[in-house]
Formats: sequence, C-alpha cells, structure tokens
Amino acid sequence: MSHKAFQDYYPDSFSQCYGCGRLNDHGLKIKSYWDGEESVCTFRPHEYHTAFPGFVYGGLIASLIDCHSTATAAAAAYRHEGRGMDTDPAIRFVTGSLHVDFLKPTPITAPMELRSRVKEIKERKIVVETDLSVAGVICARGSVVAVKIPETMVPK
Amino acid sequence: MSHKAFQDYYPDSFSQCYGCGRLNDHGLKIKSYWDGEESVCTFRPHEYHTAFPGFVYGGLIASLIDCHSTATAAAAAYRHEGRGMDTDPAIRFVTGSLHVDFLKPTPITAPMELRSRVKEIKERKIVVETDLSVAGVICARGSVVAVKIPETMVPK
Repeated sequence: MSHKAFQDYYPDSFSQCYGCGRLNDHGLKIKSYWDGEESVCTFRPHEYHTAFPGFVYGGLIASLIDCHSTATAAAAAYRHEGRGMDTDPAIRFVTGSLHVDFLKPTPITAPMELRSRVKEIKERKIVVETDLSVAGVICARGSVVAVKIPETMVPK
Repeated sequence: MSHKAFQDYYPDSFSQCYGCGRLNDHGLKIKSYWDGEESVCTFRPHEYHTAFPGFVYGGLIASLIDCHSTATAAAAAYRHEGRGMDTDPAIRFVTGSLHVDFLKPTPITAPMELRSRVKEIKERKIVVETDLSVAGVICARGSVVAVKIPETMVPK
C-alpha cells in the first residue's frame, strides 16, 4: 500500500465532504488506499456510532461504503487513464446509486475494514463492490454506481 | 400528524442509535410521524453535512432513509397488530438491505423531507420506499427491507 491516501490528492475545493474531506473537521475523514487490485479503508467507530449497544449504526456503514467507493472510482479512473492522482485535471465521482446488504450485526469493538473491487469501468460510470468486515468476518456488502461529477456540482 | 414521534415510544434500551436514538447526544435524533398512509420525517442538515459546498453528503441521506424506514416498519407492525406503540412487547426492526438512488444533487440550504410508504408487510419483513425532497423537488429515492430484530441484537 502507498502511504498517501486517495483523499489526500483531492484539491482543497473537493475536500469538504463529511465522509472523506480532509478539511471537514466534523467529519469522518476516511482514507482509502490501493492494495493490489483492491482498495482498502479501515475505520474505527466511536462508541456513539451505535445502533444498539455493541453494534455499529447502519448509516455509518452506508456512509463508509459510499465515500470509499467514490474515492475508489476516482482512483481507478486516474489509473485507467495512465496518470497519477497528482495530475490535472482532477477527476471526481459522485454516487449515482448505493446498495448495502447488512449480512450480520457489525460489532463496534474493533476497526471495520472495507475492501473494494472495480467491477465495471466506463468514462462516466464506474461500479464498485465492497466487503465490510470486522476481525475477518464479513458483516456487510455494498455496491455503488459512481458517476463522474456533474458540472453543476463542481465547486468554483 | 400526531405529536409524539415513533422514536419517542422506543424503550430506553432501544434509544441509543446514532440516527434515531433520543438518548444519543452525538446523533441525528430524527423524528418520524404518520401523515395518513405515509410516514414523514423532516431534517435540517448542518453546514458540515456537506459533500461539496452547497450540497448534502450522500451518507447522511442514506442514514436518514435507513433510520426513518426502520422506524416506519416498526410503526407499521404495531398498526398491523392493531395496537399502540406504547404497548408491550416492543417491536423493533433493523435494516436487511438499503438501496438509494441519488436522482439530483440535494441542496443543503433547506430542510429535507422524507415521505415513506409501506410496500410489503409480513411478520418478520417489511419493505419501505421513500422519497426525499427539498422544497418539493425529489432528490433521492430509497428502498429498505426491514427485518425484525434478531434476538442476538436485543439489548438486555
């Protein structure tokens, strides 16, 4: 794995997101990395990220899958174009659709690991599938259709 | 609409959830109500709930749809049994699967309204569909398969 996360390459104007923005001090500040053909993100929930005592709140799981998948889509698009994430123009994807299957209650006591694979890659649409596990046990599966950011959403 | 929200009927042991628990001081504390055959939840995002400046972070949208849908499932189950949410035993649903289609960027400048309908109701499985709108414009659509809480997750 490289030491600089996908999110660390986002220009400041793209770094406000509650889930993944390094400039959002209220947010989750997730970090995503390549590990071979898979992308990986590890996140340790706070105690207050609970659904019922002992288990992680589903909205957090959905949020992590969402932001990690769009980051993976962006990273995959750069790789597909044969250039680094530090080159212009910046590529950014947003979520077209998000699907999560909650397979088992997700324990809150240890970090969650998200491992994603790119299932389909086109210029404007990338499909990313994710397994979310705790201590090696898969607790949730996600599928995100990421779409290239519409011009109307690009920060000026 | 009644003045007491679905979440206000949850026993304390079920009220810790980050999304909907009235006892989670870090959380979103959403409130859901019947409005005829639909359930309604209104949520005003904080400025830091952003994806890009001016637009709501998708993980928040997913979280609201998730918690509002499971609350709607619980309320629908009580209604289906012909008893009030203040009667025992408590009924609680968790999310089996969550699907969100992000139809348009969701402006952060005004409250979001979620309106849900119960599409299928069985003893252990309830399907809830949701439109999320801002100022009358539908920005996202959600579908949740809610399942009756497994015994392993019931707080003692």
